[in-house]
Amino acid sequence: MERSYIFNAGPSALPLEVLQKAQNELVNFENTGMSVMELSHRSPAYDKVHQKAKSLLRELLSIPENYEVLFLQGGASLQFTMIPMNLLGEGVGNYVLTGSWSDKALKEAKKIGDTAVSASTKETNYDRIPTLSELKHNENDAYLHVTSNNTIFGTQWHEFPKNVPTLIADMSSDILSRPLNVSDFGMIYAGAQKNLGPSGVTVVIMRKDLVERIPDNLATMLDYRTHIKSDSLFNTPPTFAIYMLSLVLEWVKEKGGVAEVEAINKEKANLLYDTIDNSGGFYKGHAQKDSRSLMNVTFTLPNEELTKQFLSQAKEKGFVGLNGHRSVGGCRASIYNAVPLEAVKALSEFMQSFQEKA
Amino acid sequence: MERSYIFNAGPSALPLEVLQKAQNELVNFENTGMSVMELSHRSPAYDKVHQKAKSLLRELLSIPENYEVLFLQGGASLQFTMIPMNLLGEGVGNYVLTGSWSDKALKEAKKIGDTAVSASTKETNYDRIPTLSELKHNENDAYLHVTSNNTIFGTQWHEFPKNVPTLIADMSSDILSRPLNVSDFGMIYAGAQKNLGPSGVTVVIMRKDLVERIPDNLATMLDYRTHIKSDSLFNTPPTFAIYMLSLVLEWVKEKGGVAEVEAINKEKANLLYDTIDNSGGFYKGHAQKDSRSLMNVTFTLPNEELTKQFLSQAKEKGFVGLNGHRSVGGCRASIYNAVPLEAVKALSEFMQSFQEKA
Repeated sequence: MERSYIFNAGPSALPLEVLQKAQNELVNFENTGMSVMELSHRSPAYDKVHQKAKSLLRELLSIPENYEVLFLQGGASLQFTMIPMNLLGEGVGNYVLTGSWSDKALKEAKKIGDTAVSASTKETNYDRIPTLSELKHNENDAYLHVTSNNTIFGTQWHEFPKNVPTLIADMSSDILSRPLNVSDFGMIYAGAQKNLGPSGVTVVIMRKDLVERIPDNLATMLDYRTHIKSDSLFNTPPTFAIYMLSLVLEWVKEKGGVAEVEAINKEKANLLYDTIDNSGGFYKGHAQKDSRSLMNVTFTLPNEELTKQFLSQAKEKGFVGLNGHRSVGGCRASIYNAVPLEAVKALSEFMQSFQEKA
Repeated sequence: MERSYIFNAGPSALPLEVLQKAQNELVNFENTGMSVMELSHRSPAYDKVHQKAKSLLRELLSIPENYEVLFLQGGASLQFTMIPMNLLGEGVGNYVLTGSWSDKALKEAKKIGDTAVSASTKETNYDRIPTLSELKHNENDAYLHVTSNNTIFGTQWHEFPKNVPTLIADMSSDILSRPLNVSDFGMIYAGAQKNLGPSGVTVVIMRKDLVERIPDNLATMLDYRTHIKSDSLFNTPPTFAIYMLSLVLEWVKEKGGVAEVEAINKEKANLLYDTIDNSGGFYKGHAQKDSRSLMNVTFTLPNEELTKQFLSQAKEKGFVGLNGHRSVGGCRASIYNAVPLEAVKALSEFMQSFQEKA
């Protein structure tokens, strides 16, 4: 069996080299006579893994010293709750609605305090990111929350607002896909299972001064200060997921860093968007052109019968995960960092040959 | 490098056969052309893993139909908060204090509602489990919370109270080590990283009628109903940890089930306790005899110098994780299900030969 062409939306493709390295040392990690899964989280051998993941993330994203880096559990979905619990206070949480995930984030904040909608593109089925001039907020708002990339709709922020209240971004589906000016954000968070590693660990990057907002008497596990003080080791962390994260970060570094990875991501995305745009309307992109995502390419075919045929033939040829989400229909190719250019070329060729025969 | 003798308190030893199976199929899971980590959590291939883990746990612990089985994140520590949030209501949460973990559970409940201490053995540094007649509670209490095994102090409940308010047990460190009458409990929960698998997944077994107590407007991720309704697939679960759990459960079944595993656990524990008891006082057990744990054997040596020598020589011989917790001092051998009898025999022999030379 050859390796599939993995276009899953998340959990998604991991670099083959990373999987092979993990496989090689799965039973005996660095001559410890144990699996990395069997290491005590208080042991020097595990601490090396933990610190490597942290320092590589700091290095690759140029995270300034005045930001904390945390490894938590519960996915971005638990952050939807922890953010307002910790950072909302008596202020207003302002949310830009660009898809299901930002909707869910807003829903949790509403349970905790005052919220407002800064902008929304729901009217056109989230086919675009609002322009910066559309965003409304008050200077005194507690924060402005955005979802940097929308997996379901295939849209992505290409420029972030500046001089806004504390900017908080859910970057679950595009962190590490492009260089970032971390200082523009108060907080960045991301579930690992798209660009960072397997599911089970969530990265939080938080400007240190934000802890001053945290109210007392929060549940210990839901208080960011707990995890800051303990270096994400308050209780047993998901050690294997953090180990995999460290390997993925190492792989990005070996590739030449985030700017290099971005160049390849652009090449991959351009290949698919060109295929769509040159199809004479056979394939139609869901996202408006200036909001197109480099991570998730969403497109439809002329009718449902052709979509079915496309997906079934694609499956036979070893393409996995091309079904679109029900909110958009059609197809979706998720081309995160670890999806090789060759897989994207194969998909582009398949799309063209399918169209020719249709 | 040979395999170490792994006596870690958690994360702890995994069955070698399980690690080897995971290693073999790490890059290509069941001819999918993908790693199990790359499977979509909505795919049939992953669903098979998820359902296998659930049904094996049900089978091995004879979990009745009127109980839910959930796979959550955040460890037992997040359960310390979720339990009172969901189940305390206007009632009283009654806690039996038998060590640091029950103390932590109580601390979180205090933030949420009314609590009481049913019994405590703190006065004698948690060297025993209270007798059933010592337990105080009121008929109308919301629940009675116990920690079935105390890793740090090496004590374990050998008989659980009956006819008490809803019994809730943190079984993180002894679940699956012995047969259990699940019907005696309202809820059982356990972080996986001792007897069930790697860290990163927490098992919750909850009697279905308890959901009636859950207040509205809880944070979605902290409401047990969210995970019940979605079969623990509300957001991306820690798929690899659940996969490893399924392999460990399969291994227990192949061993003959929980009763068979308990017989080996007793043999292992007896070997070490006999070594301690026959040492003429050279080794002293921390736990009182009738409260001794089958999972964590805690003991001290005559003085600190000998303890140091013991630990250093043990390390040279390939024993890992024997350092005692600072609250007790001395040594601790954690002999969970996956620690083979041979490793325990080797430790017992080493203890004897160390004593002879001392």
